[in-house]
Amino acid sequence: MASLSTEISRIAKYFAPLTRAETGAFNLSNDAAALKIPAGKHLIITTDSCIEGVHLPRGCSLAQLARKGFRRNLSDLAAMGAQPWRYTLNLHLHNHTADGEIAKLASVLAEEQAQFDCVLIGGDCTSDDARAHLTFTMLGVCDHHGHPRGGANSGDDLYVSGTIGDGFLGLQEALVTTHHSPLTTHYYAPKPQLALGMALHKIATSCIDISDGLLADMRRLEASSGKRFALSEHAVPLSEAALFALQQNTVTLQQLLSWGDDYELLFTAPKSAAHALQQLAQHHRVRITKIGDVN
Amino acid sequence: MASLSTEISRIAKYFAPLTRAETGAFNLSNDAAALKIPAGKHLIITTDSCIEGVHLPRGCSLAQLARKGFRRNLSDLAAMGAQPWRYTLNLHLHNHTADGEIAKLASVLAEEQAQFDCVLIGGDCTSDDARAHLTFTMLGVCDHHGHPRGGANSGDDLYVSGTIGDGFLGLQEALVTTHHSPLTTHYYAPKPQLALGMALHKIATSCIDISDGLLADMRRLEASSGKRFALSEHAVPLSEAALFALQQNTVTLQQLLSWGDDYELLFTAPKSAAHALQQLAQHHRVRITKIGDVN
Repeated sequence: MASLSTEISRIAKYFAPLTRAETGAFNLSNDAAALKIPAGKHLIITTDSCIEGVHLPRGCSLAQLARKGFRRNLSDLAAMGAQPWRYTLNLHLHNHTADGEIAKLASVLAEEQAQFDCVLIGGDCTSDDARAHLTFTMLGVCDHHGHPRGGANSGDDLYVSGTIGDGFLGLQEALVTTHHSPLTTHYYAPKPQLALGMALHKIATSCIDISDGLLADMRRLEASSGKRFALSEHAVPLSEAALFALQQNTVTLQQLLSWGDDYELLFTAPKSAAHALQQLAQHHRVRITKIGDVN
Repeated sequence: MASLSTEISRIAKYFAPLTRAETGAFNLSNDAAALKIPAGKHLIITTDSCIEGVHLPRGCSLAQLARKGFRRNLSDLAAMGAQPWRYTLNLHLHNHTADGEIAKLASVLAEEQAQFDCVLIGGDCTSDDARAHLTFTMLGVCDHHGHPRGGANSGDDLYVSGTIGDGFLGLQEALVTTHHSPLTTHYYAPKPQLALGMALHKIATSCIDISDGLLADMRRLEASSGKRFALSEHAVPLSEAALFALQQNTVTLQQLLSWGDDYELLFTAPKSAAHALQQLAQHHRVRITKIGDVN
């Protein structure tokens, strides 16, 4: 395993610079960080691991794992309507990881931090002979307690943002080529719907991000609310790439609705919110589609 | 890998009951938790992984990993003077982990939660063919910003709690026998010095917990403060077991001072605090020994 001194020097060299915006991270020279939550805010906390061979194909880079892990966690904050704030990273590396790979990982984290305004505050670094394994724990702040998961009411509409199935198509492409395309980008660097998530406060009665597939995540909203949802499968918004793949019979609609990795928001809202949602879609330049009803 | 439905049912069965004291954990039915930090408190956050074959010997049980991981993180909170509050757990299992092992793990967590008043609020569960890997992220609360690591002043005394080297002796015993003894207990279930850590507010000028060895952790306090510490090795408090082992030449003093796994607090305080520290030691029934000077 990498020696303790190697790990300490890597932390100082590659990761301490990522904490500059938070003095309570103590430049990573401490074993804990001290944070002052902005007055009146709720703290929203989520954590997810990203493992080579489980969440991304074997042979993926540390930088790819980092970007996907970062954004999967941000998507969970989006589903709560929270604003990203701080995060910790547990970095579990293979013994033979080269410094160059870690430098690329840190550079991706710097990009993600700048794009999403979320600052590293701590973590740890370990290594053995297993595959790379990154755990992000993300803290968001929110004026409220987060969108409920079980708040759907009878008569509500069911909505989804963006298009569904591009994560699946992106994975299919990523498995056969290293060529970059909009679909592989969707798979490796999904866009968490943070602005939409925050804007849904006082509009959405329940909300979830689609990580495990539209159908599975819809069943979670159903189960939490105790209501039955009537999904109009033909209304589910698909990208041109997905429509083309369906036409060519290279995928089925069930695959697109079941795979996940979409990181769009699935939410319910009262019928009276339809106009507000239209305006919100225009303002945030995001597609919002009614795909069903709450019975 | 264990299926998604297996992981979801394990979470509901074994882990959701551990969240009852925090409604913002949403019974683990959500991807994020929502917390309201008690007014005026600082949030202290620390995270550390505990890996079979790295932090505990190969062949250790999940329950042993959990207890050690839980307490290693609590020890980091102790060094900040924080009170344990909430935690997340990323559970990475081997594919063939039986439900019975997970039940024992959950039962150990319930014991730890009750003993240390710290409540599970979230996490994730993954599995592949690698060894078990647990990551705890612990949140503590604190009236202040945490004990500084770099605050030692020239003329301060250097103190340590408890005795040093028992973690090393416990590991030596654990490697050759499964028999339980005070030393193996010290190794598998160290006692984080939480009450002492909190009581050191306005007394300690710097503080660290001894996880990587008295000498290495002392060098960290030195480096952070920019001072030189003069350690009186003969003053370092040793248990009867350690004294006996030294007498038998089965260990060296260097091993006892270097190994770590002690989870005692190493701290500096002005000479004027000597009497207050004596009283504090009596009140908390903890040994506090002066072992050096800050130059």
